[in-house]
Amino acid sequence: MLGCVSLVGAGPGDPELLTRKAVRRLQEADLVLYDALVSPDALALATRAQRFRVGKRASRPSVRQETINALMIRAARQGKRVVRLKCGDPFVLGRGGEEALALRAAGIPVELVPGVTSASAAAGLAGIPVTHRGISSGMLLVAGHDPDIYAGLLAAAPANTLTLVVLMGIQHRDDIARRLIAHGWAPDAPAAMVFGAATPDETTWTGVLGEIGGASLPPGDLPGTIIVGEVVRLRALIHRGVADIEHAQGERQ
Amino acid sequence: MLGCVSLVGAGPGDPELLTRKAVRRLQEADLVLYDALVSPDALALATRAQRFRVGKRASRPSVRQETINALMIRAARQGKRVVRLKCGDPFVLGRGGEEALALRAAGIPVELVPGVTSASAAAGLAGIPVTHRGISSGMLLVAGHDPDIYAGLLAAAPANTLTLVVLMGIQHRDDIARRLIAHGWAPDAPAAMVFGAATPDETTWTGVLGEIGGASLPPGDLPGTIIVGEVVRLRALIHRGVADIEHAQGERQ
Repeated sequence: MLGCVSLVGAGPGDPELLTRKAVRRLQEADLVLYDALVSPDALALATRAQRFRVGKRASRPSVRQETINALMIRAARQGKRVVRLKCGDPFVLGRGGEEALALRAAGIPVELVPGVTSASAAAGLAGIPVTHRGISSGMLLVAGHDPDIYAGLLAAAPANTLTLVVLMGIQHRDDIARRLIAHGWAPDAPAAMVFGAATPDETTWTGVLGEIGGASLPPGDLPGTIIVGEVVRLRALIHRGVADIEHAQGERQ
Repeated sequence: MLGCVSLVGAGPGDPELLTRKAVRRLQEADLVLYDALVSPDALALATRAQRFRVGKRASRPSVRQETINALMIRAARQGKRVVRLKCGDPFVLGRGGEEALALRAAGIPVELVPGVTSASAAAGLAGIPVTHRGISSGMLLVAGHDPDIYAGLLAAAPANTLTLVVLMGIQHRDDIARRLIAHGWAPDAPAAMVFGAATPDETTWTGVLGEIGGASLPPGDLPGTIIVGEVVRLRALIHRGVADIEHAQGERQ
């Protein structure tokens, strides 16, 4: 009997942001291959499964993609129900498409279980709506881990008209900000960096685009999301409320 | 005692794509104000709550935004736990920011429970990764319900370099396609429209950008997501697998 592989989005961090379907797939799984940043509480749901960490922290894979693919294919051929648990959404800057292609080429049934992407959740949890009527009706999402890739996208990005969100770009934040300014973005455009979104370590820096490069980072190697655009100003008005309810309900801190 | 309001993302349709936190907030709620497209199965989780449908279907609100805000504020002042249940993610083209601002201005504690956005899930469930290494490392997301708003964004959108996703744009699909082609997008750029994503009625049209305007729509007034870019080609390779596992596990159809 042939097994199957579920490419499952774990969301941005908080295991409460797993979908019900993700929970079910984890509970049913025989094997879970998970990203480095997935919450231990999420993994703990996979009570029946063998669990292996297979990477990846930003651009530094700890297990090669080919090896991950081979592990999934072998397990599925053994009849196992495999969950490939990925941060955020597997198909949003998560290389889930590559895994789906490899699995399909091997004849393995594969499904996508979409997740909450950090692209919107990191901003939102910091009190920043990525879109807001009258301010921004669009979002440009860019991978920031490789200058060869982002350079062209940033050069073509319409300056000052929409919300720019960069995932995996903290390491290159200075270069990213300089390129945007060179391409017409205002140096004083409101900007934010959200680190460790939806985790107890969540920290948000706010300032302006021209200051991103010189901003000091929080301790720990937390993943970060860069947000640039007028919507960042809304955080000052919205964020306190978000903190209030978390406090009121005694969930965190 | 002051109540509170949770702005909760219901995800793209399938109640299995609710987050655990969304489920908990619904179970605890005294009042649920929900969008027209929210699944009845999601609402059924709110066993303690009064439930009112307050809109909105695309650009046609059935209850004015000011009225929705006033209902939430009044209920919270009565000590009620209010859930504002919105399709997708409240802060991604969902006007959640406006509601958060109104609630904060009234001194009401408010929190965001991020949801799975249709921007990625509609594509993903149709077998289209919005990003894919070597093909597209970025996504431009645009609201398509108002030409006055999208015209400028589309005019500035970098042609043929990233994945374009338009929500709420089915009504204006011909105009959107024409504008993109006028601004340098290839008429034969691969394009898809996903209708009723993550519902039993999910239907996907694929073709090229120049054909979008003439495509016939599926019956029913299903919400649709437009996707334009080379990643659409991957559907032919990925999609069958997604169907397989749904069938194998007997979940749908």
